[in-house]
Amino acid sequence: MAVHARRRDALRKELSDRGLDGLLVTDLLNIRYLTGFTGSNAALLVTHSEETTLFCTDGRYTEQSASQVPDLAKVIDRASALALADKASGAVGFESQHVTVDGHDALAGATRATLTRAPNLVEGLRLVKDETEVDALRRACAAADNALADLVEAGGLVGRSEKEVARDLENRMRDHGAEGPSFESIVATGVHSAIPHHRPTDAVLAAGDFLKLDFGALVDGYHSDMTRTLVLTRAADWQRDLFDLVARSQAAGVAALAPGVPTRDVDRASRGVIEDAGRGEEFPHGLGHGVGLQVHEAPSLAKTSVGTLSAGMAVTVEPGVYVSGKGGVRIEDTLVVRDAGPELLTLTTKQLMVV
Amino acid sequence: MAVHARRRDALRKELSDRGLDGLLVTDLLNIRYLTGFTGSNAALLVTHSEETTLFCTDGRYTEQSASQVPDLAKVIDRASALALADKASGAVGFESQHVTVDGHDALAGATRATLTRAPNLVEGLRLVKDETEVDALRRACAAADNALADLVEAGGLVGRSEKEVARDLENRMRDHGAEGPSFESIVATGVHSAIPHHRPTDAVLAAGDFLKLDFGALVDGYHSDMTRTLVLTRAADWQRDLFDLVARSQAAGVAALAPGVPTRDVDRASRGVIEDAGRGEEFPHGLGHGVGLQVHEAPSLAKTSVGTLSAGMAVTVEPGVYVSGKGGVRIEDTLVVRDAGPELLTLTTKQLMVV
Repeated sequence: MAVHARRRDALRKELSDRGLDGLLVTDLLNIRYLTGFTGSNAALLVTHSEETTLFCTDGRYTEQSASQVPDLAKVIDRASALALADKASGAVGFESQHVTVDGHDALAGATRATLTRAPNLVEGLRLVKDETEVDALRRACAAADNALADLVEAGGLVGRSEKEVARDLENRMRDHGAEGPSFESIVATGVHSAIPHHRPTDAVLAAGDFLKLDFGALVDGYHSDMTRTLVLTRAADWQRDLFDLVARSQAAGVAALAPGVPTRDVDRASRGVIEDAGRGEEFPHGLGHGVGLQVHEAPSLAKTSVGTLSAGMAVTVEPGVYVSGKGGVRIEDTLVVRDAGPELLTLTTKQLMVV
Repeated sequence: MAVHARRRDALRKELSDRGLDGLLVTDLLNIRYLTGFTGSNAALLVTHSEETTLFCTDGRYTEQSASQVPDLAKVIDRASALALADKASGAVGFESQHVTVDGHDALAGATRATLTRAPNLVEGLRLVKDETEVDALRRACAAADNALADLVEAGGLVGRSEKEVARDLENRMRDHGAEGPSFESIVATGVHSAIPHHRPTDAVLAAGDFLKLDFGALVDGYHSDMTRTLVLTRAADWQRDLFDLVARSQAAGVAALAPGVPTRDVDRASRGVIEDAGRGEEFPHGLGHGVGLQVHEAPSLAKTSVGTLSAGMAVTVEPGVYVSGKGGVRIEDTLVVRDAGPELLTLTTKQLMVV
């Protein structure tokens, strides 16, 4: 059975459990997950049988949908969600976390089905990645790893601007098969490295400075996410100490990843190393997040997160310590939770790179 | 009065007209329009006075909001919309075209205000661009014009792939001050030019082929959008004829742009030229759309559009004729509707370029 049909089948189990006759899927990422369709207008009505499940898109995508979604009956209509609402009956769930108040009014006026809030059914399935997804994430991580390796290999970083380095890194990811960056790259040098989320500026890289690179690649719709903090030319003792602390914290977070572990305990394991060093205040963000069709998705790994890990979840582990006005270090990998221990998808060294 | 305060003042008139005590703005583009804030988490409660209007963002953006939104009282809270709902009272509109069903449930549980559907109030203001916006659009159009001029000047297009050309064009836009492309560039050569929306592939540009480039630049959050169809090396008669037809159609559409004209009449003026040539079936999309903080926004210029043009609206005019299996031509400019006749922001020639 093809991967998308298998995912639709898993969704049908959720529908049965909830007494729903169908789910009207209107979120494009969820539609991509369930069908493989990548266009910008679509709706999907998943019913209890593959035969009565309907896909809708508009005339621009007639050929594309025939090729990407060969296995479902199709409706061609610009108002895709309304067209499928019109064909729905019984108790039909809608994605109340995505459908707007006005959108719901329109759907209700277009259907004889009883519309029922059914949030996050597909997102729930997306929590655990199948091997098709892990393969895409692996290639996305490799594109980012290879781009960084090329950047370091090419040398000559000192004297270039943060913006130039960001663009160089993004082009190199494309050279390695990425559709593009998976989010706006963070390139932060010197004191800027102490800002957790920093947009690249015209600031010039200088010898002795930290260079924090937080970036990722998009491959087949899947997002990788990695951070490395390098030192330019020569590392001072305080930089080595800070790096070592974050590296130990990151390793502790990775070591805590296992099926059945509460997500907040992973944060705790990593954060504890930094708190024990008396620097807890300088780690002001969560430890990590799920990655997949979105660069930030469930599960969250943070102090206040709820839920536990399962095998097949893909997450980042990214502690950081930021010394305001001086510099900061963050180290981040993308990993998959496995029964036999976490599978590392980000393969770049976590030794301090002095470049 | 600063530009954002002036826009908030215009919004207050809309609130008064509707008997609302405030508007809870949660769409980030609308917040950017009303405040200048560019971060990824914010909410804004616009009340009848500037003094009681509240802006909320989270701790990541404390410094950024102090600098970008110096003129409003601030709340720092991660749950920005809920935090402002908690402080709202009276009849408060919410953006029912953006707020989800689940989001509305949460807002209603967090406020003593009476929440009222108030869709598209800010979008209504955004229809007519002020000169700050036109200036950003002008610079975005110039970045795209200059990138194309550089690409043509550099030469050597034959033998490169669509993907390579797309990337080259995007990098050249950045060289001319763009934050990035304003949408995924369309580079379509040979038979691909007959596909209205084509994603760049590894197909190689060959002498005698059409090269359709639909692209734009992002500057200060504003999107430009232009299309030119070139011919590589030498143009055949059928290519010149097709180009000439689309150019005449495009000129007719541009000539129809004036305050008070129904938007569908602009489509009609342009489409009529193509229909008169017996090729109406080969022009399967609308004529154009508004551009601004979104690459596609109101007003739409299409057969079934409603509404009329006003001075200050920024729109594209982009007719195309697509001969399946052979090739297609689209020509697109971004323009501003003015009392004295449309102001062209896209300055690249509309003569056939043989490169």
